Amino acid sequence: MDVKFSITAKSESPSRVVVKARNFTMYVDEPPQLGGEDKGANPVEYLLAALAGCLNVVGHLVAKEMGLRIDEMTIEIEGTLNPARFQGKSYEERAGYKQINVTVQVKTNADEATLKRWMEAVRNRCPVSDNLENPTPVKIDVRKM
Amino acid sequence: MDVKFSITAKSESPSRVVVKARNFTMYVDEPPQLGGEDKGANPVEYLLAALAGCLNVVGHLVAKEMGLRIDEMTIEIEGTLNPARFQGKSYEERAGYKQINVTVQVKTNADEATLKRWMEAVRNRCPVSDNLENPTPVKIDVRKM
Repeated sequence: MDVKFSITAKSESPSRVVVKARNFTMYVDEPPQLGGEDKGANPVEYLLAALAGCLNVVGHLVAKEMGLRIDEMTIEIEGTLNPARFQGKSYEERAGYKQINVTVQVKTNADEATLKRWMEAVRNRCPVSDNLENPTPVKIDVRKM
Repeated sequence: MDVKFSITAKSESPSRVVVKARNFTMYVDEPPQLGGEDKGANPVEYLLAALAGCLNVVGHLVAKEMGLRIDEMTIEIEGTLNPARFQGKSYEERAGYKQINVTVQVKTNADEATLKRWMEAVRNRCPVSDNLENPTPVKIDVRKM
């Protein structure tokens, strides 16, 4: 059965939104060099946070199913993008991350081969990595207030 | 010139990570019905927050270039997914959002036709909508601690 998630955002400045998701409030801003006031992480950092959160949840779920222990886990993620398109300077490269690299370190009783199988299952079942790796339809309606 | 963004995340529970992005700390958790303690928005809500933040920044940038005013802007986003794959119950449908619907409302001096052109340019230049709408390579390395 499908589940719906939603947020509402209000523009507080040209660089900043305040986002409500259920009972949570998030501030998405830009650093001064990108025109903001640095009152929160920026949109592409939020994207990486989403991926980290997803890999953690699915990682623990799959580990439990496989009977392997995860005593500690850290996730480092970096992404590279060319801001030229975002800035309207060049349309040669895509706007978003060209590549996202993740390093997951786990303290576990599993051997390396088991860990590789674990991560293949995690990647296959993680909603956020799916939405990044595969095309996702985004419909945008614009209305005047 | 390419720009790199990065985060580091530490697992605090099977459902929760604490994420560091520069000087910011973000908590990504799950509600109790998804096995968490609800100490932050969940990964797929973070994903929608990233998209809202991106549309706001690029929206204002493009409006300025086009000479149109944005006096107010709200962004509502909802996404629908089937949790069956995430839960390992069925692999028939994709893990992530099958569809993301965005409603942008703007208080502006622009007419409807201009607003449509504005949004086409915004979508074309927004890093987060690009990463969702088009495939993005995600490389995951796993290491034992």
